[in-house]
Amino acid sequence: MKKNIIKPSILPGFMELLPNEQQIFNDIVSRITKVYEENGCLAIDTPIIEKAEVLLAKTGGETEKQVYSFQKGKNNLALRFDLTVPFARYVAQYYNELVFPFKRYQIGKVYRGERNQKGRYREFYQCDIDVIGKGKLSIDNDAWVISLASKAFKSIGLNNYRFQISNRKILKGILNELEIDKTNEVMILIDKYNKIGKEVFSKELKSLIGAEKSEYINKVLDINGTNKEIIGELLKLKIDNKDFIEGIEELNKVCYILSILGVGDEEFEINLKIIRGLDYYTGTVFETILTGNEGYGSICSGGRYDNLAENYTNNILPGVGISIGITRLFFVLKEIGFIDKYEMKNKLDYLIIPIGDTIKYCAEVMRYLQKNGKRVTVYFEEDSLKKKMNYANKIAVSDVILIGEEEVEKREVKIKNMDSGESKNLEYRLL
Amino acid sequence: MKKNIIKPSILPGFMELLPNEQQIFNDIVSRITKVYEENGCLAIDTPIIEKAEVLLAKTGGETEKQVYSFQKGKNNLALRFDLTVPFARYVAQYYNELVFPFKRYQIGKVYRGERNQKGRYREFYQCDIDVIGKGKLSIDNDAWVISLASKAFKSIGLNNYRFQISNRKILKGILNELEIDKTNEVMILIDKYNKIGKEVFSKELKSLIGAEKSEYINKVLDINGTNKEIIGELLKLKIDNKDFIEGIEELNKVCYILSILGVGDEEFEINLKIIRGLDYYTGTVFETILTGNEGYGSICSGGRYDNLAENYTNNILPGVGISIGITRLFFVLKEIGFIDKYEMKNKLDYLIIPIGDTIKYCAEVMRYLQKNGKRVTVYFEEDSLKKKMNYANKIAVSDVILIGEEEVEKREVKIKNMDSGESKNLEYRLL
Repeated sequence: MKKNIIKPSILPGFMELLPNEQQIFNDIVSRITKVYEENGCLAIDTPIIEKAEVLLAKTGGETEKQVYSFQKGKNNLALRFDLTVPFARYVAQYYNELVFPFKRYQIGKVYRGERNQKGRYREFYQCDIDVIGKGKLSIDNDAWVISLASKAFKSIGLNNYRFQISNRKILKGILNELEIDKTNEVMILIDKYNKIGKEVFSKELKSLIGAEKSEYINKVLDINGTNKEIIGELLKLKIDNKDFIEGIEELNKVCYILSILGVGDEEFEINLKIIRGLDYYTGTVFETILTGNEGYGSICSGGRYDNLAENYTNNILPGVGISIGITRLFFVLKEIGFIDKYEMKNKLDYLIIPIGDTIKYCAEVMRYLQKNGKRVTVYFEEDSLKKKMNYANKIAVSDVILIGEEEVEKREVKIKNMDSGESKNLEYRLL
Repeated sequence: MKKNIIKPSILPGFMELLPNEQQIFNDIVSRITKVYEENGCLAIDTPIIEKAEVLLAKTGGETEKQVYSFQKGKNNLALRFDLTVPFARYVAQYYNELVFPFKRYQIGKVYRGERNQKGRYREFYQCDIDVIGKGKLSIDNDAWVISLASKAFKSIGLNNYRFQISNRKILKGILNELEIDKTNEVMILIDKYNKIGKEVFSKELKSLIGAEKSEYINKVLDINGTNKEIIGELLKLKIDNKDFIEGIEELNKVCYILSILGVGDEEFEINLKIIRGLDYYTGTVFETILTGNEGYGSICSGGRYDNLAENYTNNILPGVGISIGITRLFFVLKEIGFIDKYEMKNKLDYLIIPIGDTIKYCAEVMRYLQKNGKRVTVYFEEDSLKKKMNYANKIAVSDVILIGEEEVEKREVKIKNMDSGESKNLEYRLL
C-alpha cells in the first residue's frame, strides 16, 4: 500500500525555530520573566480564544480586519490580538478579588493576520507589564515599568537600546492653546515624523493647520539637548495650560525617578515626537530604539492610560504598561547578529556514554551530578563508539563521560572535554 | 454620554485563574520544566494555528469533530489539538537538521471543543516529552521518560502517584495466538475494563469472542502480584509468539531500567489492562493514577510508537513519549486539596514602603536586596500608613520595610515581619 504523504509545512508568517535557536529564545524569555518576578510582578494567563464581542468591544478599522475570528457552535469567537484588551477584561471581571495597585505581567501568543512580510509575524509572543490603580496611580510607576524594561534588556546582555520618552499632555496642551481642532490628524502626522522626514512633515503640517501654527509646532519638535535642557526650553514657552504644565511636570518626574531607579542617563532621552499612534494612551508614552539600528523601529513601547477597562466596567482604572514583542525582537536580534553571539548559560553539562552493560553505574553518576545542579543525560543507544562521539559533537555538549567496565570496577568517572574537538587532545580528570 | 458596558466574561470550558492560584500553576510548570531541562530535553515551540490538512492528516471521528477549524483568506486552518501531531510534522520537516535521538519537550496550549463538563477544558496546557530515534530507539528510553515524570511529580511535592505499565505486544501476541480477528474491539473493551467493571466486561467479551477465548483472556488479565510475579506468570503461559515474547522482554527491561533510574518499587506496577485506546502506540503503554483518588483517571500517560511521522515522511521514526495535561492536573490537585497546601518558594520577599519623600533611599535598598537575590517591590502610592499596611497584608508578603526620614538619616533598614499579622507583635531586626 503506497502511503499518502502530506508535505510537512507551516503557514506563512509563523515563526518556528530549530532547537538551537529555540533554546536561546526560551532563555531570553526566562531571563525577562525572572526580572519581572524579582520585582514583584504577578503572572496572569488568559485564554487565547475569547468571545468576539468582548475582544472587539473597542477596536475598529485596521485592527479588526486583522483579527482571527470564527464561529464554533453558536458562539462568535476571536483570537486575542494583544494582551491589553484581555487584561482590561480580566481586571474588570475580577475587580473585587484583586489587590490594587495590581502589578501584573503576562507572556503569551497573540494573533494578527498582517500582510505577509519579512520580520512581521501573524503569531507572536508579547511580554507585557501593567500596573493598575484603583481610581489613581502614582506617576512613579511610569518610571518603574520602564526601569524593568531596562533591567530586562540588561539581563539578556543587550546594551545598545535607548528609551525615547514623552508625555502626550504636553502636545495636547499646545494644540489646545493654538486652538487646533484637527488634533488627531496632527498627532498621526507627528507619529510619522521619522518615517516621512522633516521636509515632508513640515509641508503636510502647514497644509493642515497653516503656516504660523505649523511653524510653532516645528519649533517645539526641534527642541533638543539634554533632558534638563529640553524641559527648560519647554518651560520657557510659558504656555499657561493645565495639560501642558502637568505634562512637563510628569515627564520631569519620570526622568527623575528613572535615575533613582538606576536607569543610566545614556539609556533614555526625552523625544517630543513620540506619540504611539492613536492608542489609548493619555500621559507618558515611550518607545525603545536600538541605537545604530533605528530602522527596525521600537522594540518595546508603552505608556500611561487614564482608564483601562472602560468598556467593561464603570470603575476608573488608570494604569501604565510596557510591551515587548519578543518574537519580533528575536527576529531583529538575529538580523543584527546578537543571537549568533548569545551566550547560553543553561546548556547540557554532561553526556554520559555507557560502553557495554554499564547502565547501572551510569545512572548512579547521573544522579550524583544532577544532585550537584548539573544538566545530564545518558546516551542509551547501542551504537559504535564513533557514532556515540559523533552524537556528542553534534549536540555541542562540552563534557562527555565514557563509562566502560573498567570504570565501573574502579568506580571511576573520567570526563572528556570536547572543546578541542580532537580525540588526541583529550583531557582526562578525575571527578 | 452613557457608555455601553460589555459584561466581562470568558467562554465556558476555559480555565482562568486568580493571581494567587496562577502563581502556583506557574510554579508547577516551571518545576516540571526544570526537571526536563536538567535531563537534557530540548524545548521546541510550534504554532498553535496550522494548516488543517497537516493537522488532520490522520485523525477522524471524535477528535476531528472537536477540532477548532476555520478559514482565513483562502486557507483552511485548525488549532492544534495535541502536541504530538505538530511534533511529528516538525520532525519530518526539519529531519535533516535535527540530531537523533532527539529528546524534546514542549509545553503549550491545545484546543478541543469537548462537551462542557466540570474538570474538562477546551483550552488546556499539555506538557510533553518525546524521544525520537532515526530508524531505531533503545527500549531504555521508555523507562527514562517515565523516570522524568517521576522526577517531575516529586519536584512539585506530589507523592501519591503510581505508574501503571504494560506493553501492547503482549496482548497482541495472545490475541494472535487465539486467532481472534476482532483485535480492535477487544482492545477497546479492555481499555474500558475499570469503567465498566469485571462482570460487564466478561459478559461483553464472551459475546464478542466466545466463552473459551474469553476465559483465557480473563485469566491473563487477572494475573496479579509483584512485577516479578506477573512476568513469571506470563512466561508460564508458554505462548510461542514473537510479539508476546518481545512484549514481555520489553516490559521486563522497562521495569529493570526504571529501578536503575531511581524510580521506587512503590511508584510503578505492571497492569495488563492498560491499553491507551486506539492511539498510535505499539509497545510500552502507561498511565498514572493518584492512589486514593483513582476516580480522576490518568494524570500522565504515554507510550512507544513505531513510526511517529508516517503521514509526513517515509523516514522511519520510532519514539516514546509522555504527556501531562497540566490544566487538568491542576484541576485535580485543587479538588484533592493539594493546591491549598502547596508551598510557594518564589513569593515576594520584601515590600518597601516609603514614608515621606524617601524614594531615593528606598530604591537603593531595593537594589541592594535584589543583588542578594531577593524579590522586592516598592509601594509608590501616596496613601495613609494604614492603607499601605493593609496592602502589605493583602499581598501576603512576609517582610515589610518602612523607610521614613529617620531611616534615611541613619541609613537604617528596619524590617517588619508580617507573619503574626498584628502590629503589636512587630519584630524589628537590622539588615
